[in-house]
Amino acid sequence: MTNSFRRAAPFAIAALGLLAPLSEVAALEGKWTPQQVLDLDAQELRAQGLEIPPSELWGPEGAGLLDAAVSIDGCSAGFVSPDGLLATNHHCVFSILQVHSTPERDLIELGFVAKTRAEELSGGTVRAQIPHRSTDVTAEVEAAAAAAGSDDFARFRAIERKGKELVAACEKTPSRRCQLATFDGGVRYLLLEAIEYPDVRLAWAPPRAIGNFGGEVDNWSWPRHTGDFGLLRVWANADGSPAPKGQGTVPFQPRHFFPVSPEGVSAGSFVMIAGYPGTTFRSLVAQEMREKAERLYPDRVALFRRWIDLMESSSQTGDAARIALADRVKNLANREKNSRGQIAGFERGQLIAKKEHEEKAVLAWARSSGGNVPAVTAFEALRDAVAREGQTWAVDFLLDHAKNGPKPLDHALTLVRWATEREKPDLEREPAYMERNRERLTERLALEQGEIWPAAEVDLLTDLLTRFAAIPNGSPAVSAILDRGATPEAIRLRAQSLLQESRVAIAEDRKKMASESVAALHARKDPLLEFAFALDGELRAREERRDRRVGAESRLRPVWRRAVEAHAGKPIAPDANGTLRVSFAHVQGYQPRDGVFLLPQTTLRGVVDKTTGVDPFAAPAALLEAAREAPKSRFADSKLGQVPVAFLADCDTTGGNSGSPVIDGRGRLVGINFDRVWENVANDFGWNPEVARNVSVDVRYLLWNLEALGGNAAKPLLDELLSAGTAPRR
Amino acid sequence: MTNSFRRAAPFAIAALGLLAPLSEVAALEGKWTPQQVLDLDAQELRAQGLEIPPSELWGPEGAGLLDAAVSIDGCSAGFVSPDGLLATNHHCVFSILQVHSTPERDLIELGFVAKTRAEELSGGTVRAQIPHRSTDVTAEVEAAAAAAGSDDFARFRAIERKGKELVAACEKTPSRRCQLATFDGGVRYLLLEAIEYPDVRLAWAPPRAIGNFGGEVDNWSWPRHTGDFGLLRVWANADGSPAPKGQGTVPFQPRHFFPVSPEGVSAGSFVMIAGYPGTTFRSLVAQEMREKAERLYPDRVALFRRWIDLMESSSQTGDAARIALADRVKNLANREKNSRGQIAGFERGQLIAKKEHEEKAVLAWARSSGGNVPAVTAFEALRDAVAREGQTWAVDFLLDHAKNGPKPLDHALTLVRWATEREKPDLEREPAYMERNRERLTERLALEQGEIWPAAEVDLLTDLLTRFAAIPNGSPAVSAILDRGATPEAIRLRAQSLLQESRVAIAEDRKKMASESVAALHARKDPLLEFAFALDGELRAREERRDRRVGAESRLRPVWRRAVEAHAGKPIAPDANGTLRVSFAHVQGYQPRDGVFLLPQTTLRGVVDKTTGVDPFAAPAALLEAAREAPKSRFADSKLGQVPVAFLADCDTTGGNSGSPVIDGRGRLVGINFDRVWENVANDFGWNPEVARNVSVDVRYLLWNLEALGGNAAKPLLDELLSAGTAPRR
Repeated sequence: MTNSFRRAAPFAIAALGLLAPLSEVAALEGKWTPQQVLDLDAQELRAQGLEIPPSELWGPEGAGLLDAAVSIDGCSAGFVSPDGLLATNHHCVFSILQVHSTPERDLIELGFVAKTRAEELSGGTVRAQIPHRSTDVTAEVEAAAAAAGSDDFARFRAIERKGKELVAACEKTPSRRCQLATFDGGVRYLLLEAIEYPDVRLAWAPPRAIGNFGGEVDNWSWPRHTGDFGLLRVWANADGSPAPKGQGTVPFQPRHFFPVSPEGVSAGSFVMIAGYPGTTFRSLVAQEMREKAERLYPDRVALFRRWIDLMESSSQTGDAARIALADRVKNLANREKNSRGQIAGFERGQLIAKKEHEEKAVLAWARSSGGNVPAVTAFEALRDAVAREGQTWAVDFLLDHAKNGPKPLDHALTLVRWATEREKPDLEREPAYMERNRERLTERLALEQGEIWPAAEVDLLTDLLTRFAAIPNGSPAVSAILDRGATPEAIRLRAQSLLQESRVAIAEDRKKMASESVAALHARKDPLLEFAFALDGELRAREERRDRRVGAESRLRPVWRRAVEAHAGKPIAPDANGTLRVSFAHVQGYQPRDGVFLLPQTTLRGVVDKTTGVDPFAAPAALLEAAREAPKSRFADSKLGQVPVAFLADCDTTGGNSGSPVIDGRGRLVGINFDRVWENVANDFGWNPEVARNVSVDVRYLLWNLEALGGNAAKPLLDELLSAGTAPRR
Repeated sequence: MTNSFRRAAPFAIAALGLLAPLSEVAALEGKWTPQQVLDLDAQELRAQGLEIPPSELWGPEGAGLLDAAVSIDGCSAGFVSPDGLLATNHHCVFSILQVHSTPERDLIELGFVAKTRAEELSGGTVRAQIPHRSTDVTAEVEAAAAAAGSDDFARFRAIERKGKELVAACEKTPSRRCQLATFDGGVRYLLLEAIEYPDVRLAWAPPRAIGNFGGEVDNWSWPRHTGDFGLLRVWANADGSPAPKGQGTVPFQPRHFFPVSPEGVSAGSFVMIAGYPGTTFRSLVAQEMREKAERLYPDRVALFRRWIDLMESSSQTGDAARIALADRVKNLANREKNSRGQIAGFERGQLIAKKEHEEKAVLAWARSSGGNVPAVTAFEALRDAVAREGQTWAVDFLLDHAKNGPKPLDHALTLVRWATEREKPDLEREPAYMERNRERLTERLALEQGEIWPAAEVDLLTDLLTRFAAIPNGSPAVSAILDRGATPEAIRLRAQSLLQESRVAIAEDRKKMASESVAALHARKDPLLEFAFALDGELRAREERRDRRVGAESRLRPVWRRAVEAHAGKPIAPDANGTLRVSFAHVQGYQPRDGVFLLPQTTLRGVVDKTTGVDPFAAPAALLEAAREAPKSRFADSKLGQVPVAFLADCDTTGGNSGSPVIDGRGRLVGINFDRVWENVANDFGWNPEVARNVSVDVRYLLWNLEALGGNAAKPLLDELLSAGTAPRR
């Protein structure tokens, strides 16, 4: 008898999405400024996969496709239709959902779709800033700094003042938002102009069970199955100029937009990301990095973990508490996990050792004949500043984070600072308290009323006071309100009385306080305000310490960094500083550890598999039902045989890139960035091509959600997105 | 200015070990009997990668390379030198290490190496059984069964008796161990003969921190970094015949052995596994599977979890407790995790639904004209037996597991059964209590003294009694020793007194008891023995229920299975039954879930990365030190650039395959099987090629351990292994 083997279908390695061309693709470090794009080798860009000429991305006058990437208060977003529709992250529109939610009609849970444009929801504090122009003002700023003499605090103030003057002059044009952007501590200063559109409205957001699927459990990780997207629309006056919030009469027509690509991406696809990465630290010297890795992040992990636990205890007492605290918990959880990732990434990438190795080479060169002795001196001064900073570390750390804790204390400190700063001429004030920020400041004070939850505030304030009290000679303001050696119970009672006897947490009172003078605030004898006045004095002293250090750095770092660049023999993309950047990349997976390869794409199948019914893995029943037919959807990927959900690429990103449009070689939207992988968080300090992966939601998952779950209500939005894809480029 | 991109080293996709040929490789289901190997298509085998002719694996007279795979009491092992060296798993030699360990000289922690053959350690209860001959006795057994008439219990006893007669006749030859092996419930009966060598000694085992690296945390999972290997040696009389334990004078010279391959494996490599898989259930009908998936495994998870927790509490009280309980905890933890995997695998593979689908087709065919009506009747009878079994489920479940709990109760039940059975003629006895098993039975009772830990025994007995007491009309034996509605505290006091007033747990007394009659045991008035006598009566009743069902199945299942085979039109590898099997496979990874691909090989790099210093991730300092030079080792894999540790293949395995030699297409040892992946545990019920992966330790990791960590002491063993690789095949 002869047996034939029973054959099963061969394991389809092709379905893994591992493309051969990947091995020929270089990882491209760098968050390039739009101006640098014009300096890059166009042929090289074409070889990487850019199909349009770089000059379409950005022109010498500062106009190009990249200006379709806009900044919306800490997030990025991209225009995706000629009628001002913006694609961004669910977590970037979350605060709008929260403002419009009540226990009876919880838009966070339900999601939202505007059936008509008239139904779109007023966008809370969200404003869109569209890039307009950039001017190199390095010489002007350096001249002002030099005039300030040798005191570093004076130097800091001189640069700050110069910046204010430049911004004030720039903002004389209505609706103009300007900033003095400092690159790598002062290697270059640019005056950036944007046009601000305050009337931004929510057009669509999925239910939280989709938009935050996986929640904090999956945060910073892969594989990912989060539908982290939402659609906003910018409204304007009939002539296209910015309209006040809620008063736009027509949808804004952007100069450029990214049409949605019907083709999507696959492993190996070339992609670009355009957005507003916040802050990175690659230009720091090793000793400065050590301060972050060994002190800042470990301390943050401990503090945030405790505060999250306290807020979560309150959240479990009911829906109202949960809704009030949701955004704050989410925010702190994000930062806590980030801090842990930084610590792990320093270790994994041996970033400090590598930095020291690089520094050694630059120093040897700088010390050699024909080298650069001032660079050595600058380096040593940067390095030695760290030890001085350490003397006041513990109290500085608490002062720096005081406004991330009890919300009424945050408001009290804001009110006090606002009243104090208003007594100065506008140009003398701290930037955040200048007249140009009056509206957003008072708006925040009003809108955040919904985020206050008294029981949690007592817990948080008790914890903060306890931490201050534990530092010998820590905070005089805290010592003044606590008895020496106060028991935990006594501290709690003090926190309770501070909050109960204060009117800061009452919306109407707070609104009045926001226009009162320092004297008037004192006259209230509000205990929380009085405590805030005392603490604000310490904050100012702390800020002066910091500003002095920044002043010194503005003197030292450019000298050192120019030496680093000269030694490298080639230009380097500067650290992120909240300004528009573009990064060139490819869709690809990675190997996080021995024996494991993470594939570059996930699918709807994974959403179904992860669903347990328990938050954050509680995909809606409608999604599970619709998922059965998903392989047949026009938005399914033919190679994957499924609707794609998310993808990995080696885009060089950081915080602030949330909501950034991810576009293909033809400038079409293929995804929306929403995260980095855990192994890549310390990317802020050094680039590790093996784990440098950002996480984007695939635009086809957004389209599938609109079609399969949004029904007729979402059809106009779907049609707008799809027809935009075929519209001629303006 | 034109920038050139800063290029990082391209991400080396080639290093991922994903080979193109994989896509052409069929997954080969089946644990083939050695006899079936001769029936397989030799050309097909060659195409798969078998380089030697199948006739070298097994000859018609039952001799061939496969007889180098031997059975060692629940594990498999393979001869790897002409001087009787056996490679198997660390967890298969663990009990030997335990027997020889004391708190002062803890071989479990230290590992062991015999510098000379004279130093090898006596192997506890471990014996080696070398396959000798197999005879088809189906007609003879069926005739005996038919003669028993229509009562299924009588039928069971008739088959059992026939088996005993055959075995007894067979074992008249000295040192012969024989068994009547039943294939797929009675489709075929084979009389298998093996030659037993009692004198097996431990030559080498790594420290537990290597041999059990990852421990229960990594158990059943991947990626895996466990050095789960050990070396035994079989000793014999000068003429090669079996010698009593410890009395061998020369190393045994096996007929065949697997020389160690210096080449190792890579992704896509053809491999075979030869071993003694215990029990699988693919021939069950769907309703029988449902009984396992929905009742047996969930109940086991709950029971074992509780017992593990109880033993771990005791283990934390000190080293002596930990050593005593280690093997029992490990064993139960393995079974608990297995049960959870079965449940998950049923769900993942939709195994019951698939089985029902197959059955429907066979039934339709069987009911059709020219079909097989008796098969339909047999199927329905098998299906309906499940509901009847359910009536006594709860108490049967506890009776079945009573011997896995408190060790003194296990011993008492064994003593009672042993005394009772000894009053019958040998051939009338249960197989485990026949004279041929006297030595191993008394040996176990003696050696397990070290596994008793009084505090844990009280906890376990209390739990067992509590569970029995909770079942209405559950166990009369338990009711007799507990007051009605006894409180938890009263049950605990009863458990304590049963154990304290008993002498079963005292080694000397137990040794005497093992040769005492039923009357003599009763005369002791030992409360634990008396309880065991009562419980044994219930066990016998339960066993009769089970035997009756097995008797019925022996009548029904062959009828049904023959219909299944006829409908399939091709032969099928039978369910595992503890007999020698071979499976043909390829080294390959798999995709456990959306977005993740598990690579087929791990390396020493992963051991270092996983090391935290905390058990079970506490690789010894010497390993971490030696790992630095590992990439330069002669045992490093050139493609991986590292010493390989473990690999995945689609070998069709189950429990009992532990320690199985994994050999390449030329019959050379490349690995030692030690686990399956979690997703593949329910493989016992159905083959799912997408996740059918076994886990083997790479033999190169064993060699590296001997060389880099064993020093001069291990050099003779290393030389023996390496020179065996070049020795001519006998």
